[in-house]
Amino acid sequence: MGVNGYGTIGKRVADAVAAQPDMEVAGVAKTQPNFEAHTAVDLGYPMYAAIPERAPLFAEAGIETAGAVDELVADADVMVDCTPSGIGAENKTMYASYDTPATFQGGEDATVAETSFNARANYDDARGADTVRVVSCNTTGLSRLVAPLSEAYGVETVRATLVRRGGDPTQDSRGPINDILPDPISIPSHHGPDVQTIFPDLSIETMGLKVPATLMHVHALNVTLESDVTAAHVRQLLENQSRVYVIPEGFGLDGAGTLKDFALDAGRPRGDIWENCVWGESIAVEGRDLYLFEAIHQESDVIPENVDAIRAITDAADAAESIERTNRTLGVGLAGDPTGFDSAEPVEADD
Amino acid sequence: MGVNGYGTIGKRVADAVAAQPDMEVAGVAKTQPNFEAHTAVDLGYPMYAAIPERAPLFAEAGIETAGAVDELVADADVMVDCTPSGIGAENKTMYASYDTPATFQGGEDATVAETSFNARANYDDARGADTVRVVSCNTTGLSRLVAPLSEAYGVETVRATLVRRGGDPTQDSRGPINDILPDPISIPSHHGPDVQTIFPDLSIETMGLKVPATLMHVHALNVTLESDVTAAHVRQLLENQSRVYVIPEGFGLDGAGTLKDFALDAGRPRGDIWENCVWGESIAVEGRDLYLFEAIHQESDVIPENVDAIRAITDAADAAESIERTNRTLGVGLAGDPTGFDSAEPVEADD
Repeated sequence: MGVNGYGTIGKRVADAVAAQPDMEVAGVAKTQPNFEAHTAVDLGYPMYAAIPERAPLFAEAGIETAGAVDELVADADVMVDCTPSGIGAENKTMYASYDTPATFQGGEDATVAETSFNARANYDDARGADTVRVVSCNTTGLSRLVAPLSEAYGVETVRATLVRRGGDPTQDSRGPINDILPDPISIPSHHGPDVQTIFPDLSIETMGLKVPATLMHVHALNVTLESDVTAAHVRQLLENQSRVYVIPEGFGLDGAGTLKDFALDAGRPRGDIWENCVWGESIAVEGRDLYLFEAIHQESDVIPENVDAIRAITDAADAAESIERTNRTLGVGLAGDPTGFDSAEPVEADD
Repeated sequence: MGVNGYGTIGKRVADAVAAQPDMEVAGVAKTQPNFEAHTAVDLGYPMYAAIPERAPLFAEAGIETAGAVDELVADADVMVDCTPSGIGAENKTMYASYDTPATFQGGEDATVAETSFNARANYDDARGADTVRVVSCNTTGLSRLVAPLSEAYGVETVRATLVRRGGDPTQDSRGPINDILPDPISIPSHHGPDVQTIFPDLSIETMGLKVPATLMHVHALNVTLESDVTAAHVRQLLENQSRVYVIPEGFGLDGAGTLKDFALDAGRPRGDIWENCVWGESIAVEGRDLYLFEAIHQESDVIPENVDAIRAITDAADAAESIERTNRTLGVGLAGDPTGFDSAEPVEADD
């Protein structure tokens, strides 16, 4: 498996793949020899120059390259494209020219791939496909809730307000500072239609805002269900989802800052939080209307999905097998999660 | 008219009352001789010691006091209580002991007064009352939308996500920094029930969050109406509301920062924005579901309501007269508002 684009998502995908007993990192491709490139070398990932003419820059920085990115594409069974939005689409012909199946990230248009992908919702659509698009962090977060709610109760309409972090911790040129921006001002935001790439018939309206925070997104969610439910029943349903963490009362996890601290305390790599974090005490039901808050870690919630997308595209396992293996290997599930793994557990290669 | 509590709200109420041809500021009461006290002296407001034992502190600071607060209460026709949440309720017996009608702010429990108050929604409930509570900034903002929507279309359910500023610009000990906090985590927030003090039969669910911003709140609103409408019709309805500013496309008003700059450019006192600021291009309708974004200036949207509450409690004018006089005198309505006044216009005392 090769990773093209070794930034926020790419470096996490490489590490997650390296942890899988049934996968191997053939190499990673990068445009520039920055700090992440040095870490990749330390981790032993063969480094390829994403822009061949820039290979000398890597040599100057003391980083040996194994070749140009097309050599990696030729060698790899699957390419995971983790380049910035829009570059993935440009890379598509390169992957096709080597007959290498490829997965793309949610920043690309849905048309980049045969299918958009969320492991919980539509794994089978991606089995044996040549191209798959793993949807964005927010769309992944919404899909993980829509799938079980839809199966258990039927969903009439989803209304989501996405209070989005302005940028990631490393994106120091982004804002806002001290402002609350409807973004986009027009309704719906692109998120609703993006969720419909996973659930084509879903009625969903999304409103997006940006605020001066970098750690996680927070969603304020209303779902009108097709049947009467209780908050307790919904809570149990969500607790049974392996990639949904229902934050227990009394843990003092009042926002993104404490959630990230909790993940770092738990020894999570980079403090990543792969799960939707739904505040248990926020789950409220009024008639057929469900309300809740959840936090989404924009840098990492798609990582287990990327691993599963590789298994789907290579038809290496069915959904349940893949999800279980990914979860166990990474250690998905924080303290207090009934479906969680206490920590990453080794899995036999022939598992 | 006397103002008890000369802070964020009190100082604005005093200035707004001073601008009314049919009202006079008998004095203001304050607990400490800080910068606001010095400004009050410069403006010529008689200063009363809210805590009589602290009168010497005012003398030491070179501020002459006209007496203790109960002397102001005895003299004034109406007291406007602008003290911090909870103190208003403690002051209630003092006002009653002098038979002085009093208005309170939205930080007090609804039980503090005979009625809660929003000029657009229920002015008449306050006419001739002894005690009136002007609802909070967020509740005022929501009420100003619910009233016309309810009259024009009928309202089935309001669902509002309130993305709240963490504190006012002066509240430098408040947070959050770099976080997005559901606040309260449990649903509904207190805002929904508070709107029901104005609209007792309204179905409303509110979800509150706090973010690292100080300038304004932003509401993401969904209203399920009782009849089919178009976005254009709703827009026109809102444009016709004198305290709703529908932000025109092309003005570049993308958030709270630009809105405040716009208000300062317009020469508004303290850069205040008395109107709900609804983004015109956000107004969207899907079936009977209306969606929109609005910004609410927490320090000032209740100021015109406080002025109207004084007229209601003294039965000095009916709703339409009072609202029109307040709007004209303050200069409510920013550029591009069809119902607006270009600037504060003098009104004859016998108007």
